[in-house]
Amino acid sequence: MDQLNQYIEEHKQRFLDELFELIRIPSISAKPENKADMIKMAGLLRDSLLEAGADEAAVMETSGQPVVFGSKLVGPDLPTVLIYGHYDVQPVEPLELWDSEPFEPEIRDGKIWARGADDDKGQLFMHVKAFEFMVNTGELPCNVKFMIEGEEEVGSSSLKEFCRKNQELLKADIILVSDTTMIATDTPSITVGLRGLSYMEVELTGPGRDLHSGLFGGAVANPVNVLCKMIASLTNDKNEITIPGFYDDVLVLSQEERDEMAKAPFDTEAYKKEIEVDALDGEKGYTTLERTGIRPSLDVNGIWGGYTEEGAKTILPSKAFAKISMRLVPHQNSTDIDKLFENHFRSIAPEGVRVDVRSLHNGQGYVSPTDTIAYQAASKAMEQTFNQRPIPTRSGGSIPIISDFEEVLGIKTILMGFGLESDAIHSPNENYPLEHFYKGIETIPYFFKYYAELSK
Amino acid sequence: MDQLNQYIEEHKQRFLDELFELIRIPSISAKPENKADMIKMAGLLRDSLLEAGADEAAVMETSGQPVVFGSKLVGPDLPTVLIYGHYDVQPVEPLELWDSEPFEPEIRDGKIWARGADDDKGQLFMHVKAFEFMVNTGELPCNVKFMIEGEEEVGSSSLKEFCRKNQELLKADIILVSDTTMIATDTPSITVGLRGLSYMEVELTGPGRDLHSGLFGGAVANPVNVLCKMIASLTNDKNEITIPGFYDDVLVLSQEERDEMAKAPFDTEAYKKEIEVDALDGEKGYTTLERTGIRPSLDVNGIWGGYTEEGAKTILPSKAFAKISMRLVPHQNSTDIDKLFENHFRSIAPEGVRVDVRSLHNGQGYVSPTDTIAYQAASKAMEQTFNQRPIPTRSGGSIPIISDFEEVLGIKTILMGFGLESDAIHSPNENYPLEHFYKGIETIPYFFKYYAELSK
Repeated sequence: MDQLNQYIEEHKQRFLDELFELIRIPSISAKPENKADMIKMAGLLRDSLLEAGADEAAVMETSGQPVVFGSKLVGPDLPTVLIYGHYDVQPVEPLELWDSEPFEPEIRDGKIWARGADDDKGQLFMHVKAFEFMVNTGELPCNVKFMIEGEEEVGSSSLKEFCRKNQELLKADIILVSDTTMIATDTPSITVGLRGLSYMEVELTGPGRDLHSGLFGGAVANPVNVLCKMIASLTNDKNEITIPGFYDDVLVLSQEERDEMAKAPFDTEAYKKEIEVDALDGEKGYTTLERTGIRPSLDVNGIWGGYTEEGAKTILPSKAFAKISMRLVPHQNSTDIDKLFENHFRSIAPEGVRVDVRSLHNGQGYVSPTDTIAYQAASKAMEQTFNQRPIPTRSGGSIPIISDFEEVLGIKTILMGFGLESDAIHSPNENYPLEHFYKGIETIPYFFKYYAELSK
Repeated sequence: MDQLNQYIEEHKQRFLDELFELIRIPSISAKPENKADMIKMAGLLRDSLLEAGADEAAVMETSGQPVVFGSKLVGPDLPTVLIYGHYDVQPVEPLELWDSEPFEPEIRDGKIWARGADDDKGQLFMHVKAFEFMVNTGELPCNVKFMIEGEEEVGSSSLKEFCRKNQELLKADIILVSDTTMIATDTPSITVGLRGLSYMEVELTGPGRDLHSGLFGGAVANPVNVLCKMIASLTNDKNEITIPGFYDDVLVLSQEERDEMAKAPFDTEAYKKEIEVDALDGEKGYTTLERTGIRPSLDVNGIWGGYTEEGAKTILPSKAFAKISMRLVPHQNSTDIDKLFENHFRSIAPEGVRVDVRSLHNGQGYVSPTDTIAYQAASKAMEQTFNQRPIPTRSGGSIPIISDFEEVLGIKTILMGFGLESDAIHSPNENYPLEHFYKGIETIPYFFKYYAELSK
């Protein structure tokens, strides 16, 4: 591994140029109009894997967006690491809040600014370049497989089926993923828990057309007013979710476990400052890290109805819509939660409105054990490059496919992420510190090294 | 008046052609991009007044959209009728719900379909054509003035000042307006009460940018969730408005007055069917006509925040907005209500969100006495052409400038409207029955006749 730092130093500009080429493709999986970009993106990634040293790489069709698969097998007795990542990105609206073009990456203040800079093009590409290093220097101690999907941001709907059909091809000892955050540049951490997700869309219909709010106001249920009341009733004064049965399967942590979690450094003032709020809010009786780590939540992700342009239009709207998602914790089942939500939401609708509820996206949470050789390998690798032992943390985010991997392929996953919460993923001005990009490329080969050693 | 029906019959196609020319101009006062259309519209209206027989007509500048003024004075001892109307129209969104182009009028099923077909181009133009008839046949028994504004749909913000500056020019004995509805084609009515309006826009800001709803969900106040709670709290289980002091000045009608109102025909099933709802809803203890006629109401006219496009974007939004309007009744003062709303809305905002509140539009309610010669003239005129005595009714709508006329000019207003509630004003597929258009042209000269006779 003597050549590692020198290799990165020599090739750092090329690594960036290649990443920028990937970022420039607007591979937004949520938008049908970007379908051609998805295909272009998949082809380019396949080429990168081959250039980096894969024996084989292919764009494989699924019922949705294609999966890029690549592999290099160096020995039948060596362990196999399956790298998972995704080439699709979130939509970029509202565009006016970006300081530079979302798909034209720029370097400012030591960071890459662009949609996908972190999530997940930046983090994924670290693996491609770490792989390139190991191949080029003859230091690849494990077999490597890549599985890179294009539907992570819209629920990985085809990937479970893809895994089912390709169990032999995907056989591996461990799945390694960089799609999460660490606490801070000087505080490495490894994500050992992910929340699940139930993402619903609701549609309320009152009158058959927009009505004049003067002629009808006060006599007809207004679907926006009603939607506000219904949403308001989904949480109580303690910010607990009121859907009957919602908490039934929630894993309750012991006081010891909570005390252990509380040891992670957390600076409330810095957290507030970073997101520009003057106060935090959440479920009574829990800390901020507990609220996002071990407790479920309910957020309106979007709401719309009636007249939303300039000026004063005096209508009583016909329709109101909201996207409402719940983050789930072990052992809540997202399909069960979808049903509980739908039944409850329909049950609280008053007369005079019709309710439609549909599930847009769901997935289970995940808990990764820390007493495995894979966790130890990741921990030692980060300790090597960050000079500090990483802290096991629970993330509030969801990567629903991770629990599917265990169910379908029977393989555990290590979430060794290099992002920061301030990277503004899913937001305007997404960014990724250059230092983290290069630190990731440096850390990954150590994971392979220690994983191979510990596997012996 | 012998020639009246014959005159209408002979010129009916031309009347329509001329109205269509006005309708084709998209004079949307709420949209700055339609400014040129407003000016074109005002010029065209001035020309129509001159062609119809006005001695003088002019487009007069204001601080906002121009006012079209025209007059014909036939005798210093004769009473003067000031016709008020507006040439601006509401926006047309959502466009996809229109069955034909909003600014390309079509005749279908005996109705004119277009934005402004009723409100107020159709109703206003009846006066121009009735005036033309009276001039051409030498049967004009009163002096006539026209004051046609271009800001009615956005609060008539310049007109009060215009009236103040032109008190001499606008001197009249009565103001006659057709911008309201009647109960049904076979049930004429005259509007004797209008509700006032307070139209507010609120903006909530939570975090400084959209956040990842997984990483932050549960730990940060979500401005959309908060807005829903705040809006939900503005009305209680009885659909009463909870803003402290809101009802303090509400005129409470006696049981006798309510019994009198209850005599107006009202078919609940037909009403529900017309607006396509399976149940009506409103303040407990009041009938539908009372809820829109004598009681205030609060409606969200529009709401938006977060991700509102296709698919599932997992954000915790930075901002949430709503347009919220209240219809007021005598003697609520709209400026006072604006303040009560703003103070209350700010007071109920929790920590973690910032609130901005602004008034977009407001106006006082109006009550017209029925024991005047103007009311009698209108009543007799409608009885003449509809063969039935009109019922005095209270409309839920607002024409804020009407109370300003009384305050500034000292002149009462008669609201002799020929629209129907089913005309879908302010909505997609606005329409106006041809029968009502021609009936209006037929009725107006009788108003002049009886008003002149009763004034002697």
